[in-house]
Amino acid sequence: MIGIILGTIQKGVKANPDNKEIRNIIFLIGDGMGASYTTAYRYFKDDPATKKFEPTAFDPYLAGQQMTYSDDPNHNVTDSAAAGTAMATGVKTYNSAIGVDRNGAPVKSVLEAAKEQGKSTGLVVTSQITHATPAAFGAHEKNRKNMNAIADDYFDEKIHGQHKIDVMLGGGLNNLVRSERDLRKEFRKDGYDYATTKDEMLKSKKTKLLGLFASEGLPKMLDREVSTPSLKEMTETAISKLSQNDKGFFLMVEGSQIDWAGHDNDIVAAMSEMEDFEKAFKAAIDFAKKDKHTLVVATADHSTGGFSVGAKGNYNWFAAPIAAAKHTPDFMADQIAKGADVEQTLKSNIDLSLSTAEIQSVKKASATKNVTAIDNAIEKIFDTRSVTGWTTSGHTGDDVNIYAYGPGRDLFMGKLNNTDMAKNIFEIIKSGE
Amino acid sequence: MIGIILGTIQKGVKANPDNKEIRNIIFLIGDGMGASYTTAYRYFKDDPATKKFEPTAFDPYLAGQQMTYSDDPNHNVTDSAAAGTAMATGVKTYNSAIGVDRNGAPVKSVLEAAKEQGKSTGLVVTSQITHATPAAFGAHEKNRKNMNAIADDYFDEKIHGQHKIDVMLGGGLNNLVRSERDLRKEFRKDGYDYATTKDEMLKSKKTKLLGLFASEGLPKMLDREVSTPSLKEMTETAISKLSQNDKGFFLMVEGSQIDWAGHDNDIVAAMSEMEDFEKAFKAAIDFAKKDKHTLVVATADHSTGGFSVGAKGNYNWFAAPIAAAKHTPDFMADQIAKGADVEQTLKSNIDLSLSTAEIQSVKKASATKNVTAIDNAIEKIFDTRSVTGWTTSGHTGDDVNIYAYGPGRDLFMGKLNNTDMAKNIFEIIKSGE
Repeated sequence: MIGIILGTIQKGVKANPDNKEIRNIIFLIGDGMGASYTTAYRYFKDDPATKKFEPTAFDPYLAGQQMTYSDDPNHNVTDSAAAGTAMATGVKTYNSAIGVDRNGAPVKSVLEAAKEQGKSTGLVVTSQITHATPAAFGAHEKNRKNMNAIADDYFDEKIHGQHKIDVMLGGGLNNLVRSERDLRKEFRKDGYDYATTKDEMLKSKKTKLLGLFASEGLPKMLDREVSTPSLKEMTETAISKLSQNDKGFFLMVEGSQIDWAGHDNDIVAAMSEMEDFEKAFKAAIDFAKKDKHTLVVATADHSTGGFSVGAKGNYNWFAAPIAAAKHTPDFMADQIAKGADVEQTLKSNIDLSLSTAEIQSVKKASATKNVTAIDNAIEKIFDTRSVTGWTTSGHTGDDVNIYAYGPGRDLFMGKLNNTDMAKNIFEIIKSGE
Repeated sequence: MIGIILGTIQKGVKANPDNKEIRNIIFLIGDGMGASYTTAYRYFKDDPATKKFEPTAFDPYLAGQQMTYSDDPNHNVTDSAAAGTAMATGVKTYNSAIGVDRNGAPVKSVLEAAKEQGKSTGLVVTSQITHATPAAFGAHEKNRKNMNAIADDYFDEKIHGQHKIDVMLGGGLNNLVRSERDLRKEFRKDGYDYATTKDEMLKSKKTKLLGLFASEGLPKMLDREVSTPSLKEMTETAISKLSQNDKGFFLMVEGSQIDWAGHDNDIVAAMSEMEDFEKAFKAAIDFAKKDKHTLVVATADHSTGGFSVGAKGNYNWFAAPIAAAKHTPDFMADQIAKGADVEQTLKSNIDLSLSTAEIQSVKKASATKNVTAIDNAIEKIFDTRSVTGWTTSGHTGDDVNIYAYGPGRDLFMGKLNNTDMAKNIFEIIKSGE
């Protein structure tokens, strides 16, 4: 309808002005990355020596926005499962649904369509590889909580007799390696390399790779050891393997924990996870610029936390206090809950002159021995100093931005529905038949 | 830079694909209309009988977003004066500045440039006509608070010996008619019609018109008497007069009180003021579709209130309770503070079965005789029932959406700065020389 009204958006490959074959699609999802996150991240990365706010890696590619609401009898604000399913399959469904419609019937994903066409496929995340968003692209389950069943789907649901996901990188070892079934062994037997560290991942030679770098989600960017790969490194590894297929590839990359930081109302982790995601986006853009047959789309599934850039009547939002954190509040709270000295822990992890009242607020929380209370007390220091506002521990219904680059970009311009993500990608894949 | 990278945005009249002369520009500002407001308004106007959320009048025209930050030594979140000046003149300045730069020196506005080119010009608002946003287009003052001086600028600052604003419609009688000066008389003497009611406005025959419909701001849409024109009616009146000039026109239309509702954290007024603004936008689009030489741009100056669609862990946002209000909470609180019965006032103004606890909460507030406390208690009923979140009584720094239609639309696509609004319009006006 938009196209009809404006005459600027055309459907299908006509939207590709240079008439270039779209061989590869890299679809990036910043989970929970609402428009306030992308704005705040520009403040966060700003060079204070210049008057202008420097653009983020996303800014030059802003194409449009999508509406995120789910089709749920009890909710009109989506969760990641319903939004993931909408973007992966083109079907709106109920919250918690993984690749199934309102009736629980499986629906085909763009990843599956790509595999049917002989393309290579990949999922790269910082959550469990079986978490809601990646699961919506590679599994079919009535409830996102069935992460073991989702792992089984990744192995058992085959296309033309082949496994449908060639590269899987992220966390979730506990869901793939279980007492009753060891999918790690099964995938290796079927020709996959297996990695649990960055080095192992980088040394992998096979085109199929399963990399599981944590029992559950990966540590947040600020808290990672050198043995844990970044989202960028996982993205580059996936691209290097998938791009060996002449028929092209479909790769979904998720900055999974932007959302987790939002749920926790943790502005420190929100900004550093944004950075992790931005670097992966840059890597995708860099590949696409050289390749010239790759469409890159980056978007979000919803916004999280009701995060606002400014709060409490103050016409400011300060990035410096956030950048002063060397680790997340979760990391610090965990150390304190385990017995570490409050003042020492704060001082060694935060490059700020903390006030007595600030230190006291965390000491008070630590007396409860409750790690959440300690975490909240530390987060409050950053919220107050940065002037960050939050309204919820859950999601919000706000439209989210779409960034796009490469042939097919025009399909993602203007105000779209989340189901249009899949519909456009299906059409692109189909046009390549 | 965006254009260079993507190769899709071209500068100047080249951005006009049909090569149509851009004769008229209608620039609409939803003051405070952040992206959460336009999303929420879609929920608010949704037909619950259909599964799909129907698009708002804005949705088909989403073009891009703008960054709103000001150039202020003490604030990196803008006020309406600095944002208005940026959009009107292309110059970032300090909060409170009206058409002056960081040093207080006057800078030319797009309205003034249009008048220099012989175009007709207009300002249509629901605030005082001398309020920050319209003032940025038609006055030059170091502080937005000088609303009397702003009124004087409208009369005294001439271009080619002529007054620079042909049509002024809004509130602000107190600023134009004062003990020491009566600008109403002065404008009439210089050939302007003068109106204080909708009927008088509609009967006006002259091409120049001053319409002042309230001492300060207009009543909010929900609280208006029939004698007060809507923003749509004022916009249509302005267009009918300005469009008589063969050289074209520049018209700025502001939905001023979306922002005031946001400052008050009043979701009832926020949604109804959005409706008032949407109708004015539709009127502008309708004219442009017939005219074919009119560019329509609608945007915001900033977001207000840290409003989120959903709050407190609830994955819902409900429009029905908001639509149940026949008047704003301000209106009801005013009646109660003047002695009206609490329960009767609430029941006659809200189409909901209010709980005893809800009624009691307003009774408790009314005991204080404090109108703000009563207003807050009523607003809280709507916030709770609709699941609305707020983080501030002030503004936030979030990027705001840009909607555009007509020749020149492409200039407003992608991620822009607020100063690009003026830069683009200057270029369009210049290209018509």
